[in-house]
Amino acid sequence: MVTLLSLVVTSENAAPSRLDVVALGNAIVDVLAHEDDAFLQAQGLTKGSMQLVDGGEAAAIYGAMGPAVEMSGGSAANTTVGVASLGGAAAFIGKVRDDQLGAVYTHDLRAAGVEFTTAPATTGPATAQSLIIVTPDAERTMNTYLGASTDLQPDDVDPATIARAAIVFLEGYLWDPPAAKDAFRRAMTLAKDSGARVALTLSDSFCVDRFRSEFVALIDDAVDVLFANEAEIMSLYGAADLDAAVDRARSSCDVVSVTLGARGSLVIRGSESHEVPTQPIGEVVDTTGAGDLYAAGFLFGITHGYDLERAGRLANLCAAEVISHLGARPAVSLADLAATHGLGT
Amino acid sequence: MVTLLSLVVTSENAAPSRLDVVALGNAIVDVLAHEDDAFLQAQGLTKGSMQLVDGGEAAAIYGAMGPAVEMSGGSAANTTVGVASLGGAAAFIGKVRDDQLGAVYTHDLRAAGVEFTTAPATTGPATAQSLIIVTPDAERTMNTYLGASTDLQPDDVDPATIARAAIVFLEGYLWDPPAAKDAFRRAMTLAKDSGARVALTLSDSFCVDRFRSEFVALIDDAVDVLFANEAEIMSLYGAADLDAAVDRARSSCDVVSVTLGARGSLVIRGSESHEVPTQPIGEVVDTTGAGDLYAAGFLFGITHGYDLERAGRLANLCAAEVISHLGARPAVSLADLAATHGLGT
Repeated sequence: MVTLLSLVVTSENAAPSRLDVVALGNAIVDVLAHEDDAFLQAQGLTKGSMQLVDGGEAAAIYGAMGPAVEMSGGSAANTTVGVASLGGAAAFIGKVRDDQLGAVYTHDLRAAGVEFTTAPATTGPATAQSLIIVTPDAERTMNTYLGASTDLQPDDVDPATIARAAIVFLEGYLWDPPAAKDAFRRAMTLAKDSGARVALTLSDSFCVDRFRSEFVALIDDAVDVLFANEAEIMSLYGAADLDAAVDRARSSCDVVSVTLGARGSLVIRGSESHEVPTQPIGEVVDTTGAGDLYAAGFLFGITHGYDLERAGRLANLCAAEVISHLGARPAVSLADLAATHGLGT
Repeated sequence: MVTLLSLVVTSENAAPSRLDVVALGNAIVDVLAHEDDAFLQAQGLTKGSMQLVDGGEAAAIYGAMGPAVEMSGGSAANTTVGVASLGGAAAFIGKVRDDQLGAVYTHDLRAAGVEFTTAPATTGPATAQSLIIVTPDAERTMNTYLGASTDLQPDDVDPATIARAAIVFLEGYLWDPPAAKDAFRRAMTLAKDSGARVALTLSDSFCVDRFRSEFVALIDDAVDVLFANEAEIMSLYGAADLDAAVDRARSSCDVVSVTLGARGSLVIRGSESHEVPTQPIGEVVDTTGAGDLYAAGFLFGITHGYDLERAGRLANLCAAEVISHLGARPAVSLADLAATHGLGT
């Protein structure tokens, strides 16, 4: 089949020797549509969550959805785009199929300045798609068909790439495809070997429910920087309140960051703790990518000599930008935005 | 290949017996990115035009473009979406491939309430894509790879569908793919047979340059409602000024409508003529689809008993909506918008 867009998946960005962040995640094209709350109810969807769907379920939801927009997404990939937009060096490891959406995905990452060289799958299911419903309250509800993301293998984790990383960033969502879990573990081991720090985002509270004990062991064992929101971290430790959960987390991780929605975030290192307020940039349009871009700002900060509180402020700013428009990747240069807000390098 | 999105191209909207508009056009997925004027210069592109590109040229432009957004487009198809959004009954005839972008295209049209039953191509080039550069002045510059659109055949024009139409709407762009030109002629002949009015948009001044004499003959012979902008209609007749061009057009067509950019439009029937001012809805973000949505409002008006000046005002309003955001299809219900502006049915 002649597929125009796949013709262009050949160029690569010039590779810097050091990478601030190498991220591993599901490579997903977002299919975004606005719908009201009644749509969520009719489809039996839990607002604000990410649920996995098979092909048949995806087709049913898509068939019911209104006209949509396609934009590249994927949690950890969004974070790498944010790091690059801030002026950092980032690479992404994830699996697309050699289909039109895979070509779009590859183009968008590389055009954003992110190194992306994982070989696409040449057989098997299509590039992953997430059907994202944005309700009038700007909340996003995601229905993800993992497709080719389930083909990510340990061999896709290139040791030479990991060796160039200051931080290896992993998304909890990767625990869903079984082979990807092995890739995740390999990346973690390679990171330890090369002295890179390991960062993890818990991704979603249902994801935490699915893998609680494994996540706790993983965090105790090997995670240096932990990202979570309130619901996720309380669920992780079965904690009665946020303070208890945070105390438990800070005993295992060097740095812990908890996003608090409109209230901003909490950043912790040992006995140091800051509650960092945020303020919106214009109207909140779509919360898709808020946590991903928060992580981008924070990881950029801690790899560029920012103190903890300043990294938290940059993280809040990046999240505020991405929720001011549709889609999970920044619409402006985050480096320029940071400079405007006195948060530049 | 398992292609999730293609699974859903099976449902059809309930078909109304009468259709206000049946449109024939190139079925194109838009790939939109923001770039500055220097990008156009570096790529040798003429701002505001539509140029046809082959696969290699498209790959070169796409490779140079920043991260993009994919949205269904195509001039005449955008018009049908506008008619449906206003509450009218519309069908579209155009050719996609049975690939992921074709599935996206089909979904978006049907989800917008447009009847679309043209069989997708099962061989040959991919679904058409237009690489659209939006510059900071909100102007759009289009680079179109026609792909599967070149496979539209006369047999794709279903006589039963045309027989249900009050207006058969054709885009000048269809003159580019040779077989589509025959489909265009067949639609026109069928329209005459069934008593439907024939409407034509000149599409683009370079398109007019390519086919001037054929277009003039076609308009003299068979077009009842003509859409053009100033540059297109003056180029069509080699006229020294707009008045001369309009006088020539009104001698052949029942109704002539000329868009005048920010000044609004001119609507003419015989000796009746109105210059209809417009006013923007918020900031002008992206002019892609302005002419298409103008045509939607106008065709809806004249098929719903609006007088000429009121149809022109509705047309201006629909165009103003679509240029207030990225992409060539309405972001809100045009029926609601029209009602708010005292232009509802």
